[in-house]
Amino acid sequence: MTVVLKLGGSVITDKDTPETVDRAALDAASSTIAAYGDTDLVIVHGGGSFGHHHAAAHGVSRTAGTHDDTAVRDVHRAMKRLNEQVVDALAAVDVPAIPVHPLSVAHRSMEDELRLPSQQVRTLLTEGFVPVLHGDVIGHEAMGATILSGDELVCALAEALSADRVGLCSAVPGVLDGEDVIPEINDFEDVAHVLGASESTDVTGGMAGKVRALLDLETPAFVFDRGGLEPFLMGRQPGTRIG
Amino acid sequence: MTVVLKLGGSVITDKDTPETVDRAALDAASSTIAAYGDTDLVIVHGGGSFGHHHAAAHGVSRTAGTHDDTAVRDVHRAMKRLNEQVVDALAAVDVPAIPVHPLSVAHRSMEDELRLPSQQVRTLLTEGFVPVLHGDVIGHEAMGATILSGDELVCALAEALSADRVGLCSAVPGVLDGEDVIPEINDFEDVAHVLGASESTDVTGGMAGKVRALLDLETPAFVFDRGGLEPFLMGRQPGTRIG
Repeated sequence: MTVVLKLGGSVITDKDTPETVDRAALDAASSTIAAYGDTDLVIVHGGGSFGHHHAAAHGVSRTAGTHDDTAVRDVHRAMKRLNEQVVDALAAVDVPAIPVHPLSVAHRSMEDELRLPSQQVRTLLTEGFVPVLHGDVIGHEAMGATILSGDELVCALAEALSADRVGLCSAVPGVLDGEDVIPEINDFEDVAHVLGASESTDVTGGMAGKVRALLDLETPAFVFDRGGLEPFLMGRQPGTRIG
Repeated sequence: MTVVLKLGGSVITDKDTPETVDRAALDAASSTIAAYGDTDLVIVHGGGSFGHHHAAAHGVSRTAGTHDDTAVRDVHRAMKRLNEQVVDALAAVDVPAIPVHPLSVAHRSMEDELRLPSQQVRTLLTEGFVPVLHGDVIGHEAMGATILSGDELVCALAEALSADRVGLCSAVPGVLDGEDVIPEINDFEDVAHVLGASESTDVTGGMAGKVRALLDLETPAFVFDRGGLEPFLMGRQPGTRIG
């Protein structure tokens, strides 16, 4: 059983203060993972108040590339600082967390396709480790370097590892229709009216883009908030099931 | 023209003091690279007083694996601390250095073969960046994690990138026969008597293993000391030419 779990940047960081971890939330999530994460688990985290600030300051996004090496190092290092804190929080509760930095392994081709070799992640999993990846900046043919979002990474890893379940622990309890959590989404058209424009323009993709990408996966995905993390890891179906 | 250059751990660190960079040597090497490194350049550095100490303390080597996640993090983080200093020294003289961490991308297969996807390195090169890799600890099927030496990395990168030249800047001015630098080696048997046992037992391979590996490359390699760095980058043939 292989599980890909994303901890949203808004879940583990204080979004309003630059480069600040939400210590209580990160520790709580780590303890829950330590208690219930007894499958092959890959963790991905977002940027929260670490990566986005630097990406915006340097004008680099999923579609706007940069050839400025300072920009690449700034974004990447901010994400590594957050990653180190996530890895440490997990290790503190005996989760055998090992950092995996996307800039070191991934790139986008001339055709704008993400290339993410993943046998090293599979090997770490098989050997009993818990790889911890993160949104990052990566090389992009003819564009320099662009942003790789945590959500994109989750989808690529789920496919490459033939994951059995995908979980996205986010700031919201699921995909919402007004104030209600939509229990299940199998077709984008069914929810298009509540998700708005299907083409998102924000840095790392909004909910519409996220739902579309998750629907394309073979793997069932769940979107839930902090309260859904324990049920998800126990094999239940919290929040919104997608696909 | 693609060049793979290794800066030996003994060249850029103070071997006798744990986790201490030889600031003058690192800055001098960086300035030389800034002045003459106008080709597609990939830099690899060794562990020196950073990685070896932790690897030895945890009993992990090229052949002795570990399943202890603390050991993996300790070795990896020490190497990342050194890597950050190397990248910063290069960036300070306007070399567009970008870190690439082998643990994030490489692994060894069950058959003990190194797998090192390298299209991300090629993309960084083409986009004008200078990737900076390092000796590291990597996942190893059925063994947990083992050490990847800078020398092994140099050979794998030279092959994968079809490099035109390989340079190993080391503590010695070349492969030595007594006190004399051997100008050229084309056959291991010619130098077996001065290199001693062909199977090295130290953590990251001695000179005999290094020469054997470099002879196997399609690419000509040069072993030289600090004084050879400038001539090497200018396209000359300092120290010992191998293959």
